[in-house]
Amino acid sequence: MAENFELPAGSGKGKSVVILGAGIAGLVAAYELDRAGYDVTVLEARDRVGGRVWTVRGGDKIVQTGRTDQHATFDQGLYFNAGAARIPSTHRVILGYARKFGVKLESFVNDNRGAGWDFGGHVRPERRMVYDLHGRVSELLAKAIDQKALDQAMPKGELEAFRQFLQFYGFLDDKGAYAQASFASGFASEPGGYAHAPTQLPALTLKELLPNRAIGFPYFFQSINDMQPTMLQPVGGMDAIARAIHAQVKPRVTLNSPVTAIRRIGERVRIEHGPGNRTTEADFAIVTLPANLLERIPNDFSAPKKAALKGINYLPSVKVAFEAPRFWETDNDLFGGLAWTDRLNENVIYPSDGFMSPKGVLVAAYVAGWTNQDNPQRFAALSDAERFRVSKESIEALHPGKSQLLSKGVTVGWGLVPYSEGVGALWNEGPGGARGQQYAELLKPEGPIYFAGEHLSYVGLWQEGAALSAHEAIKLLQARVADQGETRNDRIVRTAG
Amino acid sequence: MAENFELPAGSGKGKSVVILGAGIAGLVAAYELDRAGYDVTVLEARDRVGGRVWTVRGGDKIVQTGRTDQHATFDQGLYFNAGAARIPSTHRVILGYARKFGVKLESFVNDNRGAGWDFGGHVRPERRMVYDLHGRVSELLAKAIDQKALDQAMPKGELEAFRQFLQFYGFLDDKGAYAQASFASGFASEPGGYAHAPTQLPALTLKELLPNRAIGFPYFFQSINDMQPTMLQPVGGMDAIARAIHAQVKPRVTLNSPVTAIRRIGERVRIEHGPGNRTTEADFAIVTLPANLLERIPNDFSAPKKAALKGINYLPSVKVAFEAPRFWETDNDLFGGLAWTDRLNENVIYPSDGFMSPKGVLVAAYVAGWTNQDNPQRFAALSDAERFRVSKESIEALHPGKSQLLSKGVTVGWGLVPYSEGVGALWNEGPGGARGQQYAELLKPEGPIYFAGEHLSYVGLWQEGAALSAHEAIKLLQARVADQGETRNDRIVRTAG
Repeated sequence: MAENFELPAGSGKGKSVVILGAGIAGLVAAYELDRAGYDVTVLEARDRVGGRVWTVRGGDKIVQTGRTDQHATFDQGLYFNAGAARIPSTHRVILGYARKFGVKLESFVNDNRGAGWDFGGHVRPERRMVYDLHGRVSELLAKAIDQKALDQAMPKGELEAFRQFLQFYGFLDDKGAYAQASFASGFASEPGGYAHAPTQLPALTLKELLPNRAIGFPYFFQSINDMQPTMLQPVGGMDAIARAIHAQVKPRVTLNSPVTAIRRIGERVRIEHGPGNRTTEADFAIVTLPANLLERIPNDFSAPKKAALKGINYLPSVKVAFEAPRFWETDNDLFGGLAWTDRLNENVIYPSDGFMSPKGVLVAAYVAGWTNQDNPQRFAALSDAERFRVSKESIEALHPGKSQLLSKGVTVGWGLVPYSEGVGALWNEGPGGARGQQYAELLKPEGPIYFAGEHLSYVGLWQEGAALSAHEAIKLLQARVADQGETRNDRIVRTAG
Repeated sequence: MAENFELPAGSGKGKSVVILGAGIAGLVAAYELDRAGYDVTVLEARDRVGGRVWTVRGGDKIVQTGRTDQHATFDQGLYFNAGAARIPSTHRVILGYARKFGVKLESFVNDNRGAGWDFGGHVRPERRMVYDLHGRVSELLAKAIDQKALDQAMPKGELEAFRQFLQFYGFLDDKGAYAQASFASGFASEPGGYAHAPTQLPALTLKELLPNRAIGFPYFFQSINDMQPTMLQPVGGMDAIARAIHAQVKPRVTLNSPVTAIRRIGERVRIEHGPGNRTTEADFAIVTLPANLLERIPNDFSAPKKAALKGINYLPSVKVAFEAPRFWETDNDLFGGLAWTDRLNENVIYPSDGFMSPKGVLVAAYVAGWTNQDNPQRFAALSDAERFRVSKESIEALHPGKSQLLSKGVTVGWGLVPYSEGVGALWNEGPGGARGQQYAELLKPEGPIYFAGEHLSYVGLWQEGAALSAHEAIKLLQARVADQGETRNDRIVRTAG
C-alpha cells in the first residue's frame, strides 16, 4: 500500500540528489531517498519548510509582494492555517507519515449543521437549508410518482417501496407534502423540560432555498470526496507533519536558498542558488517547484518541457483570520464547521480545536472560487484593509453585534506570496478527467532531473498529492539507478567473461 | 438563557431538600439548590454518580441482574461509554455546565462517509450508498421534470432553475441520467500521483440501495436534529460532566443509599433508604428516579400519580464493547463514526478519541431499535457470550479477518442494570408531539415532592433533558418557597399592623 512506501534499503548508495523545495513533495522525497542511502541536499527558498502548508502564529511575518508586511500577534497557543487546513481520512500517505512520526491528530469539523448560510440577504442555519431542500426534493418526487409519471422508471413493487421510503426520508405528511419543516431543520421553539414541547418552523419554499446560483455550492460541498467526514487536522497547527518529516532530514535541508538556475552538466545536474551565487551539483535532481515559478527559472530543459510549463494557472486563494473571544461557541453553539455566503469572503471557518477555551482564531474569509469563480481575483485585488472590512461585514451578518470583537486581523493572498504565487495548479480536464499532452509532458524527467509537486498528481491542491507525486518521481529515479547498476554489472560480467 | 440558569441568591436559606438520585437531574438540582442556599442531601443507590451516564474503565464491575458479573480489563486510558456517548452542540445546558466547570470537550464523529453499511448481505461504504441514492433521487426527479410531470408544481422559470441545480447537485450526465457513480461515492481506482487518474464506480441501482426496510434508518439517521454535527464528547469519558458537577456538591451526596420508601409527614417529606433502615427528612424532595422504578417504591403519592406512573416503557438498549488494536484506522481509514447493519447488533461505533494510538475501544453493538424495533429485546435476551458472538460476526463482515483482534469484551444490557432497567422512557406521542394526560400528571408535584429526570422533558434520553427537567422542578420548588415567604411576611405585617 502507498502508505508503506519504501525504496530498496541501501539502493541509493553512492548517488547524490539535490531536491528543490522543502514543501511536502520535497520533504517526502528527501526522507525516502535519505533512508534508501542517497546523499540528499534540499534547497528551500524560504526561512521555513512546508511551502503552502503554512501555520501562522504570533510573531510570524506575512509577506505579500508589493504590500506592507504584516506581523501576526495572536496569543500564545493560537494559530492560523493560512494554507492547507484539513486532511481527509482517506489521504493515507500523508496520514501515514503523521502516524510514523507520532504527529497527534484531532477531528477537523468540516460540516456543522448549525452554521449560517448567508445568501440573497438572508442568514439561515445550514440545517434548515439542507433539510428543507431535502424535504422539497422528496415532495416533488413523491408528487411525480403519485401522478404516475415514473411508472415506466422501475417495476411497480420497487416503485411502491421507494415511495414509502420517501415518506419518512423526506419527512412528508400523509398527503405526501412537505407542509411543515421537520425537526431536522430546527425548531421554532426549542424542546425543553416539563411541558416545553418543541414547535416546527415553517417550511421554506424552493425559491427561498435556491435564491441564486451561488448557493448551489454549499449544498454540493459536503459531497466532494475529499471534503467528506472524517476530516482531520494535526493538533497545534497543520505544519506539524511537514515539521515532523523535516526533523528526519534536518541536516540535509538548507533554508533561504532560492534557486536561480537549473543546469545539466553532462549526465549530472548543477543548481545555481542563493544566498549569494552558490552552486550545488548532484547526480540527480527532484524539482518540486510550482510550474508557474519553474517556468521563469533559467533552465536547460527541452523545448517540449519549456512549452508545457507555460500557461498553467494557479488558484490565487485568499484567507483572512482574526483572533476573538469564542462568541460563535458561547452564543451560537458552533464548535468548528463552515459558514457560507454569497459575499466576497465566501467561506468562514470556525476553529475545530480548543473548544470552550477563551479565545480562538476565526478564519473570516476563505476565498477560493467556491461560490463564484471570479471571487479569488476580485478579493485578492482588494487592499488588506478592504479584505478585513468585507470579512467583518460578513461576520456581522452571521453574528450581529459581534464583529467588533474581531482583532489582530491578518490576510494571506496566495497569489502575492513569494515562492508560491498561488495555492495549486488549475487543470483543465478533458472528458474522463484526462489532462492531455501538457500534463503528460510535465511528468517526464529531463535526463537526471525529475519532477514532483501537487500539480503532478490527481490529488491536486492537497498534501496527499504532493506526497504521491514525490513517490512517483523517486520510483522513476530509483529505477534509473537500478538500471545503470545492472548495465554496469552487465559490463563487468561481460568483461570478466 | 437556559445555560445561565440561577435561582435567586440565598433564596433557599433555612429550607432543606432531599434529592433522590445522583444522575444528571439530581446533580444539577443539587448544585443549583445548594448555591441558592438550600440545605441539600442527595441519596444515590449506586456506588457512583451519573446514573445512565456511565463510563466503564479497566477495573470496573458490570452487574446485570441474574447474570454473572463482568469485570472490565481495558488498558489504562481506554474507556467505554456504556450509556450516554455524545452531546449535540445545541445542548446548551449540559454544555454550559461543562464550560462552567472546565470539562474539556472534543469532537464526537457521528458520521463517517467511509464507514461500512452491511445490509442485505452486502457491505458497502456509507459514501457509496448515500451519494448513489442522492444521484438516483435526482435522476428520477429530473426525469419527471423533463417529462413535464411537474409543470404545475411551480412557475416555469423556477422549475428550470431547479432542473439546472439538480444537474450538478445530483451529479447527472448530459442526458439527466445518473449513469456512473460520481466521485462522491468513491473510486473504482483511487487518484494518485503522476498518471494515476481516478476511475468511477458503477452506479448502484435503487434496488441495491434499498435492499430492505432496515436500511431506511441509516439514511435517515444523520438528519435527526440531535444527531447532526457538530457532536461533542468530554475528553477521557462521558462521565466527566457528572463528575464535575458532583465535585461541586460532594459532601451533600451519599452513595450506596437506595430509596425504599417515599413518605409525606405533614408538610414535609421523609425518605426511607439504605444502607440499613435509615430515614432522611426534609422540607422538600426532588425525585429523579426513572418512572419504571419509582412505580415500585412504596410511596404516599396521590392515586392519579400512582396511575400515571404505570405502564411507561423504558428502552432496554444493549451495548457490547471490545478492546483492539486500531485496525479500523490503519486498514480502513476510519477515524470515529458509525457503521450500520441489519444484523442484530445494529450499530458499531468507532472511537473519536486517541486517533493513531495503538489501541482503542470499539463499540461493536449498540442495539436501540435503530433498524428494527424488536432488536433491543431480542439482543438483550441473548447470553453475554452470544452477544459477543453476534457482534464479532458483524465486525468480521465489516473488517474481514480482524474480529480475532477483539478482546476484553464487555456488554451492558440496560434493562438488566439495577437502578436503571432501561435507558429512557418511550413516550407514545400523539398528534403534534403531545404526550397527553399521563405526562401532564407526572409533572405535578405531590405536596413538597417534585419530580425530574429525562422522562420529564422533550429532550428525552439525553443529559440535556435531565438537566432541563431539573431546572423546571427547582423553579417550581423555589416559587413555592417564595410564596410561603410572602405569605409569612404578609402575616407578620398584618400582625404588626
